[in-house]
Amino acid sequence: MKWLRYSHQGLIGWGQLIGDTVHVHHGNLFELHQATGQTLHLSELQILAPCQPTKILALWNNFKAAAEKNGWRQPSEPLYFLKSPNSYSHHLEAVTRPQSDVGRVVYEAELGIVIGKRGRNISIDDAAQHVFGYTCVNDVTAVELLRSDDSFEQWTRAKNFDGFTPFGPWIETEFDSAKAIVTAKVNGRERQNYPVSDMFFSPTELVCRLSRDMTLEAGDIISCGTSLGAMPWQNEAVVEVSIEGIGTLSNTMKEFT
Amino acid sequence: MKWLRYSHQGLIGWGQLIGDTVHVHHGNLFELHQATGQTLHLSELQILAPCQPTKILALWNNFKAAAEKNGWRQPSEPLYFLKSPNSYSHHLEAVTRPQSDVGRVVYEAELGIVIGKRGRNISIDDAAQHVFGYTCVNDVTAVELLRSDDSFEQWTRAKNFDGFTPFGPWIETEFDSAKAIVTAKVNGRERQNYPVSDMFFSPTELVCRLSRDMTLEAGDIISCGTSLGAMPWQNEAVVEVSIEGIGTLSNTMKEFT
Repeated sequence: MKWLRYSHQGLIGWGQLIGDTVHVHHGNLFELHQATGQTLHLSELQILAPCQPTKILALWNNFKAAAEKNGWRQPSEPLYFLKSPNSYSHHLEAVTRPQSDVGRVVYEAELGIVIGKRGRNISIDDAAQHVFGYTCVNDVTAVELLRSDDSFEQWTRAKNFDGFTPFGPWIETEFDSAKAIVTAKVNGRERQNYPVSDMFFSPTELVCRLSRDMTLEAGDIISCGTSLGAMPWQNEAVVEVSIEGIGTLSNTMKEFT
Repeated sequence: MKWLRYSHQGLIGWGQLIGDTVHVHHGNLFELHQATGQTLHLSELQILAPCQPTKILALWNNFKAAAEKNGWRQPSEPLYFLKSPNSYSHHLEAVTRPQSDVGRVVYEAELGIVIGKRGRNISIDDAAQHVFGYTCVNDVTAVELLRSDDSFEQWTRAKNFDGFTPFGPWIETEFDSAKAIVTAKVNGRERQNYPVSDMFFSPTELVCRLSRDMTLEAGDIISCGTSLGAMPWQNEAVVEVSIEGIGTLSNTMKEFT
């Protein structure tokens, strides 16, 4: 099932997408909810980021092909950083380049795990029960900032400019991540294409391991990291992150004005 | 004025503290609000973290004395990381040591700037208008994790175990940070004592500079970094972070059970 959040005539709502029709629901996506009977056509709506995470945890160095190419060791534990709510943005919302000169800004196509049930110290056997579904994430990064100060790696700053985390367009609950392929197209030309199976830490392992460090809340997202092909994102270029079985997240970079 | 949030007979509320009496308010702390006429005695209440930040941005290497002792260069720009909502905890709430062996966990006494008005690209002249008040922060850190992987600095992980960011006990709106002293006592013995004036980047500079990177929301906190004297926090030890003119934030470390 596909669940999305939308804005329609100034009101925010959410529902289940079947074909091009949204079946509006009320209640809580992760708890009790019910169809209201109202339906809306997808073309009438502005699609919003499908949930409102208290945090997004995003992985670094989680793909074997990228590690091999870059000469990175296999990590003994998941290596991750935070993306904060000011960075969240919607499908089709423009991403604005920072006003200050921060150097190259890259797109990174990623699979996002949407947590459905609060948990801490989740066992590997229970991890799948805590996953509500999956979505597409573009982990936008001002790469030159990461190591511009040799005394302190600036993962927070490089990853958290306003709008630097588009995700969506919806959450798919029936998705087999084992066989999934993540792609990124730039102005229609494919630039990333990698299998989820190439991860060092699989989605269920990530849920298990990260929940040893901190409580994962319903609606939180773990973004699984990217593989080869992340490139600078030029102004006016359209980046589409696609995962077969989920959908396509599309955003355009614009200059700060 | 002192503003606090509390739990009382299972209900969460907030109000102004005058002496030992809380004057209950309704509305929004940062927008329109009004006294309800109800009063409660401080001793009847469980004090909660005084606001619910969408993010806490915390500084590294912002004090000259600490930089000098540690051989750190003066940073050309503020260097910061994120503390996420799962890490927030209350005055008098126990901080739980992580279950896994993460090595030494230290307390760090800090001044917290509470944003009162949403803003992006805030000018240095406007910065004070965006500050609602100040509070005490204990930036708890599993220091040995920070650089335990030589390919990636783990600021997110080391700083974001559940409960690792106690703040409070309330927000003081009439506070002159220029002359303030921050102290930490461990079981009554003073271990940190440093002047806010020793910062590389003052509170208004931090508001201005960080808002160039990201929107600061009402209720967000910038924790200004710590200076000398942060030490390992033993089980059962009581750490009190005090700032004259604000108050004292007190927490005890407990073993995971």
